Amino acid sequence: MTIVEKHFKQIKPLKIIKSLKNKNQQCIFYVTEMIFGESMRKKFEIDKNKDFSEWYNEIIKQTEMVDQRYGVKGFIVHRPWATIALKQLFRTFEEQLEANDHQPVLFPVVIPESLLKLEGEHVKAFEKEVFWVTHGGENKLAERMCLRPTSETAFYSLYSLWVRSYRDLPIKYYQSVAVYRHETKATRPLIRGREFLFIETHCVFKSMEDADNRLKEDMEISEEVLHKKLGLPFLVFKRPEWDKFPGAEYSHATDTLMPDLKVMQLSSTHNLGQKFSKPFDIKFKNESEKEEFAYQTCYGPGIWRILAAIVSVHGDNHGLIMPWEIAPYQVIIVPIYSSETKKHVLEKATQLLEELRSNGLRVHVDDSENTPGWKFSEWEMKGVPIRVELGPRDIKNKSAVVVRRDTKEKKNVKLEKLFEEITRQKESIADNMRKKADKALKDNLHNAKTTEELLAKAKLGGIVRINFCGSQECADKIQDMTGLEVRGTLARQSEKPNGKCAMCGKEAKKVTYLAKAY
Amino acid sequence: MTIVEKHFKQIKPLKIIKSLKNKNQQCIFYVTEMIFGESMRKKFEIDKNKDFSEWYNEIIKQTEMVDQRYGVKGFIVHRPWATIALKQLFRTFEEQLEANDHQPVLFPVVIPESLLKLEGEHVKAFEKEVFWVTHGGENKLAERMCLRPTSETAFYSLYSLWVRSYRDLPIKYYQSVAVYRHETKATRPLIRGREFLFIETHCVFKSMEDADNRLKEDMEISEEVLHKKLGLPFLVFKRPEWDKFPGAEYSHATDTLMPDLKVMQLSSTHNLGQKFSKPFDIKFKNESEKEEFAYQTCYGPGIWRILAAIVSVHGDNHGLIMPWEIAPYQVIIVPIYSSETKKHVLEKATQLLEELRSNGLRVHVDDSENTPGWKFSEWEMKGVPIRVELGPRDIKNKSAVVVRRDTKEKKNVKLEKLFEEITRQKESIADNMRKKADKALKDNLHNAKTTEELLAKAKLGGIVRINFCGSQECADKIQDMTGLEVRGTLARQSEKPNGKCAMCGKEAKKVTYLAKAY
Repeated sequence: MTIVEKHFKQIKPLKIIKSLKNKNQQCIFYVTEMIFGESMRKKFEIDKNKDFSEWYNEIIKQTEMVDQRYGVKGFIVHRPWATIALKQLFRTFEEQLEANDHQPVLFPVVIPESLLKLEGEHVKAFEKEVFWVTHGGENKLAERMCLRPTSETAFYSLYSLWVRSYRDLPIKYYQSVAVYRHETKATRPLIRGREFLFIETHCVFKSMEDADNRLKEDMEISEEVLHKKLGLPFLVFKRPEWDKFPGAEYSHATDTLMPDLKVMQLSSTHNLGQKFSKPFDIKFKNESEKEEFAYQTCYGPGIWRILAAIVSVHGDNHGLIMPWEIAPYQVIIVPIYSSETKKHVLEKATQLLEELRSNGLRVHVDDSENTPGWKFSEWEMKGVPIRVELGPRDIKNKSAVVVRRDTKEKKNVKLEKLFEEITRQKESIADNMRKKADKALKDNLHNAKTTEELLAKAKLGGIVRINFCGSQECADKIQDMTGLEVRGTLARQSEKPNGKCAMCGKEAKKVTYLAKAY
Repeated sequence: MTIVEKHFKQIKPLKIIKSLKNKNQQCIFYVTEMIFGESMRKKFEIDKNKDFSEWYNEIIKQTEMVDQRYGVKGFIVHRPWATIALKQLFRTFEEQLEANDHQPVLFPVVIPESLLKLEGEHVKAFEKEVFWVTHGGENKLAERMCLRPTSETAFYSLYSLWVRSYRDLPIKYYQSVAVYRHETKATRPLIRGREFLFIETHCVFKSMEDADNRLKEDMEISEEVLHKKLGLPFLVFKRPEWDKFPGAEYSHATDTLMPDLKVMQLSSTHNLGQKFSKPFDIKFKNESEKEEFAYQTCYGPGIWRILAAIVSVHGDNHGLIMPWEIAPYQVIIVPIYSSETKKHVLEKATQLLEELRSNGLRVHVDDSENTPGWKFSEWEMKGVPIRVELGPRDIKNKSAVVVRRDTKEKKNVKLEKLFEEITRQKESIADNMRKKADKALKDNLHNAKTTEELLAKAKLGGIVRINFCGSQECADKIQDMTGLEVRGTLARQSEKPNGKCAMCGKEAKKVTYLAKAY
């Protein structure tokens, strides 16, 4: 509570306003805010817990993240608030990848049909969902080309030229791009599109062991970025055979839990073994001068879906809560002034802005014509982590009011300590957001021993953990009965089943996790 | 000259090597380098002044910037050395645009045919050179879509929804993307491609005056980034009527001079007036509540071509010289060691690396198996601005040898002063590169008063300045006769003609610049 709020808490407010008139605009503002605040503000009115789907659609629209009116199904327009967040998200991942010795490359958006067809399982999965470029100007192309649905085939055609010796390995390259799939399912912004944003890494190793280890490293990168930096908890699953990446030996993937208690895959990593190196002829001379096919992996953090998860997991009934790393503005300064004090307050606000910017923060002063109350709600809705309120009285006291978006806590802070306080709060905000999200995941993780328990737990939503025989037949039955899909076994730790398969009662071979999925 | 070099300059080197054997590996290295250096090194052997075209093709290949073996004409693979430089180039421009109040957006890569066709002049210019997407999977699309050749039509379809009132203006948005054109001319990496990298800004204003001013601002941005930061000199031309952007009222463009004395356009900015706002129905209510069509501009720095110009203008016979802003590594540390001193030297090198990195520099230690001499040439070829050589003797002296790429000057620097020295050299390198490039442009700017002079000056190459009647007829004649194109009149200053048209002898209306062009 601010000093002003404390001071006037017990007194009749209208009387105060009258008595304050022409005296102290900042006090008047705070008092009127106290009384009429809510009604004066721009409002976001959907209860996230009641109708998450509606909440999601409205929040990405009302915060001007995306516009769906481009007129082509599955192709959306990213407005500045989403674009800046996506750029920061790319950078956060890229920095982590570069710290793990990856280098960026950029391959063409088009893949000639003959190249796409080189690996059999891969093409089978993708050929029905790619966009085809067939003409250049008025001329039919000699060979049609697809827009990249993913770039294994593009990368590996060059890897066969670049890899010669074990000395060339490992190769660890990534690219940050959009990919294209002619989705037949319903599309949703940031969740399922025909154009969506993506990082893909493509690595080459001299042994299967190196490739296996690489999948662990990928999951450490996911942990570092998704969980530690962005506060998104997830489970890492080894996908069942029937759900692995087309052309992979095996696949690991990270599933987070959305507020509607369905899981969403945020990233996946695949051990391709020698399945692509053989058709693409990627060979190297090993230490004993013998030629060998190379071992490969690929990893894909779904930048779009990660933003969708951030919006969904962290947001509340007042709007977005942006993690520090990707917030387009990390600090919003709201100046509070009357016409007499405007110049003075804006000067000081700009000075603060410069100071915080020179410390590397993304800061903005909202000097628009809206009322302070409107601005508070606007930037709350847009999820700016920290708001700084600054009026003439604050300036006189050499202080400002600092408000956290996640907890809405208010605090008076001396201006000379402002950067220090923001740095402290930034850590605390990240911790709080992560812990809250961790708890939501944990609270929705259920065990089921029998079919009856499975049916009961399925109704709760969330993730259900069962002993499982491993057969696709049981998996299909479970899905028919409950809508839950087999997401896989834990990849980061091994779990021994301690009972019979919850579906068929036969001997369980693994502990498996089930959930409805995006 | 290093201490070691000075010391041994006058003495018979082979004798010294023998006497030094097993004593001081670092001295031996420097002495053998002095004698055998050139022959021990990886070599780049093409004289830029003799055959610039061959030099260009080889340098971008040998430095592993790009690979042209993807198998689709005009679509190249960007390897890490080019990709990192391009990413830095994008960031440098983006930071400048953001400092000028632009915000990023991201529009779809596809443009439906009906949208492309809304503005008549625009579609006429582009429809014959776009790639058409016609199918999704096995299904023919209801409407074919082109890959963006540029995004006016995509942006403006949404601008008609976003712009309502003068309060919404100005809009200043940009996107960093690849664009696609089915070029029929010969393609060349980074210069002319069917896929190439691009920033496009699209601004909306409430008056023609604002739009006019915006073109000036764009040229200031070009000056700031291209000239001040990247050391690329250019002239800004108002293009003649017949060479303006399709759909524009008028166009300004920056031409730099390439080493083969042809000019290359690096960026262009267009005042679209109301030419697009009318067909796209972008209207706003002005201050007096009257509805008006908006005024628009677009600006496009050609990121690809800017990198091509950097390679070409700054490079020398030893390879690339990368400007500080975009160098993938700004500092390369080459450790010099024997098997006994390896561990010690690498430790110290890594410590230096960490120190410089924590100061925000992009640094790399080359601990590969190659000889130091090989490494020197390798990183010289790749254009790293500063090389730091570090051996046991240097470590003992708490110093390192610092070598500038641009002048090849060597200097012994105390380790405690290393960052300071690098910061100082960075400025000096930028100044030197800019001045050298400025001089090359100035030296190749000729005046011609008569047709005879024009013919003579055209043979010299470079840019020819003439008094000009302004007719397309004369422009065509000049081109037939000399190969020179009319590039336009200076946009940043007005020049009065002081004589007759150099071609037809009629009254001159303007001072015009001619050049062969990429």
